[in-house]
Amino acid sequence: MELLFLGTGSGVPSKERNVSSIALKLLQKQNSIWLFDCGEATQHQILHTNIKPRKVTKIFITHMHGDHIFGLPGFLSSRSFQGGTDPLTIYGPEGIKEFVETSLSVSGSTLTYQLSIIEFTEGELFEDDQFTVFCKKLEHGMPSYGFKIKEKDKPGKLLVDKLKNAGVEPGPIYRQIKQSDVVQTDDGRIIHRDDYLGPVKKGRIVTILGDTRSPENYQSFVKGSDVLVHEATFGDEKKHLARAYYHSTATQAARLAAESDIRKLVLTHISSRYQQGADYELTEEAREIFPNTELAYDFHQLNIAFN
Amino acid sequence: MELLFLGTGSGVPSKERNVSSIALKLLQKQNSIWLFDCGEATQHQILHTNIKPRKVTKIFITHMHGDHIFGLPGFLSSRSFQGGTDPLTIYGPEGIKEFVETSLSVSGSTLTYQLSIIEFTEGELFEDDQFTVFCKKLEHGMPSYGFKIKEKDKPGKLLVDKLKNAGVEPGPIYRQIKQSDVVQTDDGRIIHRDDYLGPVKKGRIVTILGDTRSPENYQSFVKGSDVLVHEATFGDEKKHLARAYYHSTATQAARLAAESDIRKLVLTHISSRYQQGADYELTEEAREIFPNTELAYDFHQLNIAFN
Ligand SMILES: [Zn+2]
Ligand SMILES: [Zn+2]
Repeated sequence: MELLFLGTGSGVPSKERNVSSIALKLLQKQNSIWLFDCGEATQHQILHTNIKPRKVTKIFITHMHGDHIFGLPGFLSSRSFQGGTDPLTIYGPEGIKEFVETSLSVSGSTLTYQLSIIEFTEGELFEDDQFTVFCKKLEHGMPSYGFKIKEKDKPGKLLVDKLKNAGVEPGPIYRQIKQSDVVQTDDGRIIHRDDYLGPVKKGRIVTILGDTRSPENYQSFVKGSDVLVHEATFGDEKKHLARAYYHSTATQAARLAAESDIRKLVLTHISSRYQQGADYELTEEAREIFPNTELAYDFHQLNIAFN
Repeated sequence: MELLFLGTGSGVPSKERNVSSIALKLLQKQNSIWLFDCGEATQHQILHTNIKPRKVTKIFITHMHGDHIFGLPGFLSSRSFQGGTDPLTIYGPEGIKEFVETSLSVSGSTLTYQLSIIEFTEGELFEDDQFTVFCKKLEHGMPSYGFKIKEKDKPGKLLVDKLKNAGVEPGPIYRQIKQSDVVQTDDGRIIHRDDYLGPVKKGRIVTILGDTRSPENYQSFVKGSDVLVHEATFGDEKKHLARAYYHSTATQAARLAAESDIRKLVLTHISSRYQQGADYELTEEAREIFPNTELAYDFHQLNIAFN
């Protein structure tokens, strides 16, 4: 899995940072891409990456503020214009359906693919054979949500050498051993799978929170994430402003990471008051509390390795 | 007056051309700016110009296709975010009100300025002391319109030397002469204003047509324009495609200009199939028929001098 930050600014676009969008490339197996938020000109940002819009199969919307959704109608239309045919699902808060359907309908846009729009509240959003996605309501003045993408654990690899040493030669029996707790060989021996499997490969957890204040309330939701993506609209010197506008400071995000067994913290949704140079102060401020912190910038790419 | 092209592409944004928007800077007197269409990322393009969003007081929408309107919600919100307080009026076809109001409402956007939305059909759109704007329905599969911005003629200047030669010395009488057809001086002479005024300064005409096919039908509407801005989505070799998709070719636009007493033709709304280099063929093709043709590019600026 890889994160590619398409827009890391807050509120309005600036020359340095576009409004919010993050791509999660699933890579292996599905080879599809999920978007988190779709601020205006997300499709323009994508032009400068290797992302193909038709590969985007799910879009998750954290909340309905314009800087998180106004790029949706254009992205959806262009995906169609470019001949995308794979179905696309949007998961978003109440209102997302009205916004998308009105935009497409008044503009006479018909799509070449099947679009589903799911308005969620809280809890488990969906599950497939590889991932479970959960969402959690935050505190932002309007309904805003965080998403936890939990990859399923992968069973350990078959210990081929150990099986050979035990006199079990490669053949169809190996597949049987993989698929069953206990297998009896042709010569009558009982093979317990657990004795011949390497360690379980623990699935990764990526958590992306929407705009929120008071992040200290979300420890149990983010706990154990390999990567936590968190807004840091302000620095600690503006914590009163952050509270008043339902946003977080870099310090608050770092405290949450430090207290929640997080591997890496990535700060985004940076106010345009912190221009190149000044934004480094946000990183410094957070690293004092949680050293493994990065500040996202537009087109920042992050590989999420297994732990 | 000056035209500043903010987006000159067609359908979807490319790295070279954004989707449609044109700014008309009125400069003298009003010093305000009118936008024609507002495709996605128009506010982003504006970041690279000297245009201040609060100076934009009117937005005219040619038609409801996404590449002409999806930048509106973001532009309107950012104008507010930046503290704009001057009223803004949008003139657009049926549907524009629903689109704007839905977008602002679902995103919880409240504006710092008064927004009026006027859905027009055809005819005279409005008149102030400096301009009259007319609109005309075109042929595009969905309602699409052209706008003619007609500046009012300015009366000639008072011929001060001629008045002095006639023995009328400067004083309050000069203002009376300017304001009345006939004035009697203190010493009883009759002054006819027309004898003491220089030539009338003819107002300029700028005509901007939305997407359309069959431009030959709009001669009487565009007649006498100092500048005609016309779409040229395709070159002549694709005229069947142009017809099928309700668009024009460069040749067709040039023919309209040649037959309608136009001073300058500017081609825009260029399909992304014509990339840098290839788009020059469109200009060449048009110039064979109407030599004073320019191909617009993003950030192209054009001064509109008096004739
Ligand atoms: Zn927000
Ligand atoms: Zn169109």
